[in-house]
Amino acid sequence: MTTSTASLTPIEIAQTASLASHVLKAVSGADRDAALTAIHAALEANKEAILAANLKDMSAAYEGKLSQSLVKRLDLSKSGKWEDMLSGILQVKSLPDPVGNTTLATKLDNGLDLYRVTSPIGVLLVIFEARPEVIANIASLALKSGNAVILKGGKESVHSFATIARVVREALGSTKIPPGAVQLVESREEVNSLLDQDQYIDLVIPRGGNELVRYIKEHTRIPVMGHADGICAVYVAEDADEQKAVTVVLDAKTDYPAACNAVETLLINSATLTTVFPKIAKALIDAGVSLRCDEISLAALESTPIITGVTLKAGTTITPAVTRDYDTEFLDLTLAVKTVDNDNEAVNHINHHGSGHTDAILTESKERAEDFMKRVDSAGVFWNASTRFADGFRYGFGTEVGISTNKIHARGPVGLEGLMIYKYKLLGNGQGAGSYGSGEGKKAFLHEPIAF
Amino acid sequence: MTTSTASLTPIEIAQTASLASHVLKAVSGADRDAALTAIHAALEANKEAILAANLKDMSAAYEGKLSQSLVKRLDLSKSGKWEDMLSGILQVKSLPDPVGNTTLATKLDNGLDLYRVTSPIGVLLVIFEARPEVIANIASLALKSGNAVILKGGKESVHSFATIARVVREALGSTKIPPGAVQLVESREEVNSLLDQDQYIDLVIPRGGNELVRYIKEHTRIPVMGHADGICAVYVAEDADEQKAVTVVLDAKTDYPAACNAVETLLINSATLTTVFPKIAKALIDAGVSLRCDEISLAALESTPIITGVTLKAGTTITPAVTRDYDTEFLDLTLAVKTVDNDNEAVNHINHHGSGHTDAILTESKERAEDFMKRVDSAGVFWNASTRFADGFRYGFGTEVGISTNKIHARGPVGLEGLMIYKYKLLGNGQGAGSYGSGEGKKAFLHEPIAF
Repeated sequence: MTTSTASLTPIEIAQTASLASHVLKAVSGADRDAALTAIHAALEANKEAILAANLKDMSAAYEGKLSQSLVKRLDLSKSGKWEDMLSGILQVKSLPDPVGNTTLATKLDNGLDLYRVTSPIGVLLVIFEARPEVIANIASLALKSGNAVILKGGKESVHSFATIARVVREALGSTKIPPGAVQLVESREEVNSLLDQDQYIDLVIPRGGNELVRYIKEHTRIPVMGHADGICAVYVAEDADEQKAVTVVLDAKTDYPAACNAVETLLINSATLTTVFPKIAKALIDAGVSLRCDEISLAALESTPIITGVTLKAGTTITPAVTRDYDTEFLDLTLAVKTVDNDNEAVNHINHHGSGHTDAILTESKERAEDFMKRVDSAGVFWNASTRFADGFRYGFGTEVGISTNKIHARGPVGLEGLMIYKYKLLGNGQGAGSYGSGEGKKAFLHEPIAF
Repeated sequence: MTTSTASLTPIEIAQTASLASHVLKAVSGADRDAALTAIHAALEANKEAILAANLKDMSAAYEGKLSQSLVKRLDLSKSGKWEDMLSGILQVKSLPDPVGNTTLATKLDNGLDLYRVTSPIGVLLVIFEARPEVIANIASLALKSGNAVILKGGKESVHSFATIARVVREALGSTKIPPGAVQLVESREEVNSLLDQDQYIDLVIPRGGNELVRYIKEHTRIPVMGHADGICAVYVAEDADEQKAVTVVLDAKTDYPAACNAVETLLINSATLTTVFPKIAKALIDAGVSLRCDEISLAALESTPIITGVTLKAGTTITPAVTRDYDTEFLDLTLAVKTVDNDNEAVNHINHHGSGHTDAILTESKERAEDFMKRVDSAGVFWNASTRFADGFRYGFGTEVGISTNKIHARGPVGLEGLMIYKYKLLGNGQGAGSYGSGEGKKAFLHEPIAF
């Protein structure tokens, strides 16, 4: 833990962050960029110390018998990870300044001009899991957008986090950004106290499993942005193209099954039971995907030679689905399959069982696709494309702070824009509002757009 | 209470609203506009019944010895109120359709196009106080923006509300919008149950006093949009123009003292103690405003002939301020006065004691004004203009659902735009994400903007 943060109580951490956020709101974009340059240089200069700290985390992970995949995620020296972390900072720096941009301008009257300009939200509390490089990524996004940030990393990477946080804070010492703009907390107890600081903290962003997200939503009045589940569906309409369907479903399930944008439910139109569906099922089974099928689709597979002739890989199964399978984020090579009779049933299933993350339709009809995309109430609605495209980098945002299934503020992959709010600036020359209105002797508003 | 709503439990009300919201998301803008036309016609046709119900509320108010001003606010037959309510519906109808507008478009690859389009939030729960005409206003805004709405009005206008709600729901019966899109609840208990329905209700908008807002924020996981307090400040810098200062401060305090955008704290630069400040004070005192002054400003007034020579109106006082005066929303002809030595002190006072609603600076320096507007963290930051301009109609939004001091989603006066979120539509032709990336044989994304 960094000395300067360690001496502060959670309330003081929140207050310090709030004060820093007021400074951040006033400095220029060049000052914020300079802070990113300083952080980049300091991390490079302290590579040895950081990797040494990281090694401690790795050793502890080995000793604690953490899973191989978790140990891998901890490893900062793994091929390209360190370089990606550093280049990510410069990539964020190179994005356009999101602060102070005019998004609306109206002449209320001559000499009375209204502007809506983007401004930072204030103080973010970001809670994430093991990967230590996330701290540099999140700190960059926060500073670029003029927000102060309090970070809580996973306990598995405590040494890496503490060292990176120290280096970041020391680097800020040489800039116009107060070190309080990036602070680290380590314990769950500190997070619990911070969740009460709604007068200082403006937004909580939990990046992690659904238990973490649910816990946080239950325990704070501060707005929470994120997603608890990623129960994504792909619907195969009766006129789906076979090759597209096979490619999209296979990619959506197998490209990275542990991701929140992987497909968990396959909805098949009953008209495809003996046409496209067996081809999809064959490709999935060949890739080692277990299927949990409703009665109709199971019967269809059991009477299809291309399936019944296949020898299943070890661990791969085709079994009857139970109800809760359609509400489950498997996060592995398992897929729930359900037959529907029409698009309407598919849409209703998704709106009822889905998590509002990303859902796709496979169809050759633009009209049918548009109807599906209008009626499915999810952050991402895709036509003939894999749900795996739901990602800030793939969308072209450069980076993301997370994926939101919220219904307000920001939805889907959230980039810098999602860390902004706006304020209204009114430039007058001494007007009172009482002079305007519809009564006798009152002036009327012009409400003319101002070019910007 | 309308029969159809009365038979539903709060959970059923929320579910019905959710189902209706899914229909609302799919119908066209013309269908939503047709619903507003039908509501307008139905209200006009049922004027007699509604005014009769309103008379019942008024009689009850008289008998219940409610204040004269509350009775006035209840009265739908009061000059122009009925006509304003009806024309308000048509005004909302005439606004551009906020649904389905593209706000971002990117070609990820040839044949893989990403669009971000505005979409309704879903289900709103709007809680408001006495004025019965608000129901028509809110219902119009909700339907225009494709949102279902559950309304809870003040108990003083229960008969008016119930009758208007019945008429609105009957009118919807002849349109493509299900009547479940506009529902009324009457009791606090129902509201409490609804605050638990975060799986069906997406946003709570409390319009009312700070106790109501605070109560709601404490009792729900659903996002809440609104403002608890309106503690607005006007800062008189050392170079403020005397005439502008007098006009702006007088308007900000006296135009409508009970409004949330009325000024509650006057910050005066010490350099104005014997110049501009006494002129402002004189104008305020003449208008019957009581001043609660810090020591320095009080001493300044006590040694100023234009003040000491004035005979105060009955009830008007000039007294020493106590600390809590600077955190108080007086909502009447009372103003706290505090002396500061520089702009920085003024900004810090506002960021610490203000409510983030609207704050103004009076100065002849553009640079000083810009610095103030950048550093004051409020929804509205004004230069030489009255805080009373912070209002959806005055801003040119046509109407507003309320004023938000939230730090996310929407801030300041909230019009139709604040009732929207967006979704990402991805139009592909069978792509999987696994084909893209930086590895061997992978395709790169184009990320080219698409004109829209």
